[in-house]
Amino acid sequence: MPRHAPHISILGRTITERYADPEATLDVVSDVLGVQLAHRSVRRFLPGDPVDDRRLHAIVAAAQSAPISSNLQAWSVIAVGDPDRKRRLSALTNDQRCIVDAPLFPVWVADLGRARRIAARRAVALDAANYLESTIVGFVETALAAQNAVVAAESLGFGKVFVGSVRNHPSEVADELGLPDHAVATFGLAIGRPDPTEPAGVKPRLPQAAVLHHETYDAESADSHVEAYDEVLSGYYRRHGLDGDWSTRVLTRLADAE
Amino acid sequence: MPRHAPHISILGRTITERYADPEATLDVVSDVLGVQLAHRSVRRFLPGDPVDDRRLHAIVAAAQSAPISSNLQAWSVIAVGDPDRKRRLSALTNDQRCIVDAPLFPVWVADLGRARRIAARRAVALDAANYLESTIVGFVETALAAQNAVVAAESLGFGKVFVGSVRNHPSEVADELGLPDHAVATFGLAIGRPDPTEPAGVKPRLPQAAVLHHETYDAESADSHVEAYDEVLSGYYRRHGLDGDWSTRVLTRLADAE
Repeated sequence: MPRHAPHISILGRTITERYADPEATLDVVSDVLGVQLAHRSVRRFLPGDPVDDRRLHAIVAAAQSAPISSNLQAWSVIAVGDPDRKRRLSALTNDQRCIVDAPLFPVWVADLGRARRIAARRAVALDAANYLESTIVGFVETALAAQNAVVAAESLGFGKVFVGSVRNHPSEVADELGLPDHAVATFGLAIGRPDPTEPAGVKPRLPQAAVLHHETYDAESADSHVEAYDEVLSGYYRRHGLDGDWSTRVLTRLADAE
Repeated sequence: MPRHAPHISILGRTITERYADPEATLDVVSDVLGVQLAHRSVRRFLPGDPVDDRRLHAIVAAAQSAPISSNLQAWSVIAVGDPDRKRRLSALTNDQRCIVDAPLFPVWVADLGRARRIAARRAVALDAANYLESTIVGFVETALAAQNAVVAAESLGFGKVFVGSVRNHPSEVADELGLPDHAVATFGLAIGRPDPTEPAGVKPRLPQAAVLHHETYDAESADSHVEAYDEVLSGYYRRHGLDGDWSTRVLTRLADAE
């Protein structure tokens, strides 16, 4: 694919960074892969460059183009830009500074409320027994949509970071956003123009052999790659002034009752 | 952005199809938006064009480049290509023909098993009280990764359809895939080269005003768009030989106990 030729060197760099493996290569390329592989979290934003309505429109159109299960469309998004509201939301999410700094903080909502209201208007009873399955569908659809929004935003030059801690105080966050019943704030997305002075790199991921299985799940083979990855991540954290390896951090995260 | 000029007409067509609204426009463009907005489900595949290892490698690298919460990496993917296994999985998922036809059927697994095994190897107890939160994180991370995989695959010329019904018979599917404890098959992805003879179009979505809120959730304003959308979808379904409107189908889907 000669028209992609200039991308090969960029993709070559991003794939070696992605796995912290100088031997990693990628010999198929696309403009989309270039944006995806270069992904990193951005927590500092340039002031004074809002996400205007035209761009928000494009980003939401991308989100709505994500696949949906049985066409439920079980999500909504609340575009929060008001500085006071962002400050209050920040206070509810471990004082995440990125929420205050980002010009836009869309909160993604797993939303079965719309369907419940349709049922109420048509006087149809919905069986509560489906709660678990429909809750999973809501979270999955919300995430599929939001990931499309992320990649669309990055293709337009924006940076972003997910804020999962909107789930820390669900009822206060719901009050702040005026959420109706059956609508759950799943995560926020702080978005804006990346501040180029932020020290941030691509965080290396587990080797593919640790997450990709063929035909059946092979725990022993997959887990044999964890120790080497722990060493890679120790080095990465050390360079960013942090300690610990990956396994320790995973266990700490899961042990944190929240 | 003059270099994108040729895309504007394509994007113009996809945005009007996406909302079934001849007035819909998009005045920012990117190669990524072009791929995302053109998304449609593909259920019929050309024979004899497998997803080779190089492309699978690129698709999984894109999946691993999706954002993750606290770097948990709480998902795995099982690339199923064996015809007999695909047939058995199809029998467990309402006889979905697309699984048999697609050369590759990656099953995406919300996987807290890896972390649990690390805890066991280090003799660390993990508090079961975190079950709900970590389950949500697992589903969300799996969906974010899979959506990156979808867009990467589409950028390489593949088509796909999600198969959520791998959740219909969780224990049989887990047996077939050899899943360990704490690993949950979330959805499959039938993937291959689209059969161009398949009659399939872009399914129109709810208008943006029905899903996008500003500052706070406004149910009354959002829901005021549902009736017009029901008419649009009635027309779409009729053209595809189906009846009913969107609201009716949503209620039927949610009433189906499974």
